[in-house]
Amino acid sequence: MDNFTFYSPTYFAFGKDNENEAGKYVKRFGGTKVLIHYGGGSAVKSGLLDRVKKSLENEGISFEELGGVKPNPRSGLVYKGIELCKKEGIDFVLAIGGGSVIDSSKAIAAGSLYDGDFWDFYSGKRRIEKALPIGTILTIAAAGSEGSPDSVITKEEGMLKRGSSSDALRPKFSILNPALTCTLPPYQTAAGITDIMAHLHERYLTNTKDVEVTDRLIEGLLLTMIHEGPRVIEDPNNYDARANIMWAGMLAHNNAVGVGRSQDWNSHNIEHELSALYDCAHGAGLAVTMPAVFRYVYKHDVTRFAKLATRVWGIQMDFENPERTALEGIDALENFLKRIGMPTSFAELGAKEEDIPKLVDVLCYGNGRGGSIRGFVELGVEDCKKIYKMMVK
Amino acid sequence: MDNFTFYSPTYFAFGKDNENEAGKYVKRFGGTKVLIHYGGGSAVKSGLLDRVKKSLENEGISFEELGGVKPNPRSGLVYKGIELCKKEGIDFVLAIGGGSVIDSSKAIAAGSLYDGDFWDFYSGKRRIEKALPIGTILTIAAAGSEGSPDSVITKEEGMLKRGSSSDALRPKFSILNPALTCTLPPYQTAAGITDIMAHLHERYLTNTKDVEVTDRLIEGLLLTMIHEGPRVIEDPNNYDARANIMWAGMLAHNNAVGVGRSQDWNSHNIEHELSALYDCAHGAGLAVTMPAVFRYVYKHDVTRFAKLATRVWGIQMDFENPERTALEGIDALENFLKRIGMPTSFAELGAKEEDIPKLVDVLCYGNGRGGSIRGFVELGVEDCKKIYKMMVK
Repeated sequence: MDNFTFYSPTYFAFGKDNENEAGKYVKRFGGTKVLIHYGGGSAVKSGLLDRVKKSLENEGISFEELGGVKPNPRSGLVYKGIELCKKEGIDFVLAIGGGSVIDSSKAIAAGSLYDGDFWDFYSGKRRIEKALPIGTILTIAAAGSEGSPDSVITKEEGMLKRGSSSDALRPKFSILNPALTCTLPPYQTAAGITDIMAHLHERYLTNTKDVEVTDRLIEGLLLTMIHEGPRVIEDPNNYDARANIMWAGMLAHNNAVGVGRSQDWNSHNIEHELSALYDCAHGAGLAVTMPAVFRYVYKHDVTRFAKLATRVWGIQMDFENPERTALEGIDALENFLKRIGMPTSFAELGAKEEDIPKLVDVLCYGNGRGGSIRGFVELGVEDCKKIYKMMVK
Repeated sequence: MDNFTFYSPTYFAFGKDNENEAGKYVKRFGGTKVLIHYGGGSAVKSGLLDRVKKSLENEGISFEELGGVKPNPRSGLVYKGIELCKKEGIDFVLAIGGGSVIDSSKAIAAGSLYDGDFWDFYSGKRRIEKALPIGTILTIAAAGSEGSPDSVITKEEGMLKRGSSSDALRPKFSILNPALTCTLPPYQTAAGITDIMAHLHERYLTNTKDVEVTDRLIEGLLLTMIHEGPRVIEDPNNYDARANIMWAGMLAHNNAVGVGRSQDWNSHNIEHELSALYDCAHGAGLAVTMPAVFRYVYKHDVTRFAKLATRVWGIQMDFENPERTALEGIDALENFLKRIGMPTSFAELGAKEEDIPKLVDVLCYGNGRGGSIRGFVELGVEDCKKIYKMMVK
C-alpha cells in the first residue's frame, strides 16, 4: 500500500427533512450572509428553495440568490457569482443541487477570496489555498462533490472542461435527504448511478499491489449499486434504495475507499471531452466510455478484471482462460448500464465520428498534457483514437 | 435506513515514517505544550518515543511525559494526567500506543478542562462538551480509537469498565504507520484482529431493514480481515497485510460503515465485565464471547446470520434449512479465531464459573441498567447467565 493522507471533515446530516435545518447548520459553521446557489427550476418548483430560505430567515441569516447553473457548469455564471459575493460581502456559499451546482459553488467560493481570474485555479496556474465556507443540500446522487475536495468547470471559450482540487473546497456540511432525489427523471437517476460506478472503477483500476481493504470496499459499493440501481429505476419512490445509493455515492468519491493506491481516471478524462463538446450528461458519456476503455486496456492486468468479474458480477472464474472471465465482466457492466437506460454508443450521445481527431487533440494535448493521458495505462493519441472509434460501433 | 449524522474530521497520515512528522502535525493543530502519554516499555525500547520527542523539539514544542498506561486503562493514571496537564498548562495531548493509551489520553483531555471529577463523564452524570486537542500515533490495529469519538476507562474501585463518547474526543490527527505494528507479539495481533471483527459484527447485527450499503461495506471489511489476519499471524513483518488491517480497523469503528442502522454491542457489554474482572485482553474476551452470544440470539434473525455466513464465510446457502447455514457461519467465525490463536473458553481467560452471578449482576444492573442489556435483542439476567455458561464449555 502506498503512503497517503486522508481528511474528510465534512459534517453529514443524512435523512428525511434535514434540509429544514439548513439555517441551523449555516449558523453553526459561521455563515452570516449567504449566497444560495442553485440550478434550474426543480428546486424552485418543488418548494425546496423556499423551505431553505425560510430556515435561513428563522436563524436571522440574510442571503442573496443565484440560480441558473447548468449541467457541465460554466465559467460565465461563476464570474457572476464571484462578483456578487464580493459586492455583497457574502461569507458562506450554500449549494442546492447536484454536482454541477456544488462544483460551481466551490469555484465561486475560491474565486471570491482571490484577486485574479478564478480560471487560474482550473488551468493549473495557481493552487486553491482558501475559499469561503461551503454547505450543500444534495438533490442528486452522482458526482460525490458533497464530500470531495474537487470541482470541475467548463470554460465557454473552447468548451474546455477542467478540474481543480483543494481541501479548502471540502464542504463544511452536507445535507443528504434521499427523498429529495425521488422526483428525478429515470435518465438522470441512471446517469448518476453510472457516475458513481465510474468513480469506483477509476479507483479499482490500480497498479498498486496488495490493497485488499480498498478492493473489498470498492467491490462492496459496486455490489450495492448493482442491487439498488434497478430497484430505483423500477420504483423511483423507493426511499431506502435512494438512501443506499446516496451514501454509496458520497463514499465512492470522498476517497475513503481509494486511499493508498494508484488510480485510473482515463475514462473520466476521455468522457470529459464528450460532455464538453456535446453537452451530454456526464454519466451517460461514462456509460459509453467505460466499456470501450476497459476492453482496450484489460490485458494490462487480466487478473484484476477477472477479480472484478467474479467478485462483483458473480461470474464463475474460468481458470483455463481468465481473459474470458475478464471480458464477461465488462459485458456484464455494459448490459447493466443498458438495463438502467443508459446509452451504449457514440451516436446516442450526439457525438460524431468525424470529430474524433479534434477530441483526441484536446484530450492529449490540452491542459498542459504532452500527447498522452496517464492512468491505469498510458494512452497516446493512437490509443485514444481507437477507443473513441470503439464507441462508434 | 434511519436518519443519521456522520462527522469524522480526523486528519489521517498513513504509511511509513510518518511518526517522524509528529511535531509538524502537533504544530498544525495548535499544540505548543504537549503531554506525551504512552504505555509500557515498547515505545521506549523501540526508540519510537525518542523519535517523537525529537520531532517535537525540531518544531520548538515543549512537552511533559506520562507513561505506564495498562491494557484496560485505569482511572488512577487519568487523575495523574489531569493533574499534570492543569499544573503544567498543557494544551495538547499526544497519545503513543493503542486503544488503551488513546482512551486514557481522551479521558485526560476531557478531564483537564473540567473542574469536577472526570469519572462524571463515564458514570453518565455529565456529557463531555470540550477537551484538549488530541493527536495519536497508533501502535496496534484494534480499538479504532484513533478515528472514533469513544473512550473506555476502568475505575479501580470495583473494577468498573465504562465508556464515554463525544465529538470533542475525536483526534485532530492520527498517524498510522503499519510498520510500527510489526513488532507486536502474535497474541496481541490476534486480539486486535478480533476486536476489529467484533466492531464489525456489532454493526452488522441490526434490526434496521434495507441497509445494503452498510451491509456490503461491513462484509467487505470482514472479508479483508479473514484474508489478512492469517497472513499477518504467519508473517508478522508483512507490511501490506498490516496496512490493510490497520485501515480496516479505523473504518470498522469511525462508524462510516455503521451509520443509519441500529447496532448491537451486546458482545462488547458482556465482554467488558470479563476484562474488567480478570484483566484479560479485550480481544481475547471477545473471541470467547461472540460465538456464545451469536448462538444464543441467531434465531432472532436467521436470514441475517445466513447472509453473513454466505457472503463473508463463503458457505453455500442451505435453502431448505437456513438455520444450518446461519450456525455454520458462527462455527466458521469460531474456527477462524481459534486458528489465529485466540481462546475459545472461559477457563482460557482465567474466568471462573462461580463468578457468573457476580458478572451478570454488574452487567445487568451496573451503569444505571434496569436488569437487562439492549442491542440486537434484549438480554435479561437469565439470558446473560446462560450465555456466560455457554462459554464455560
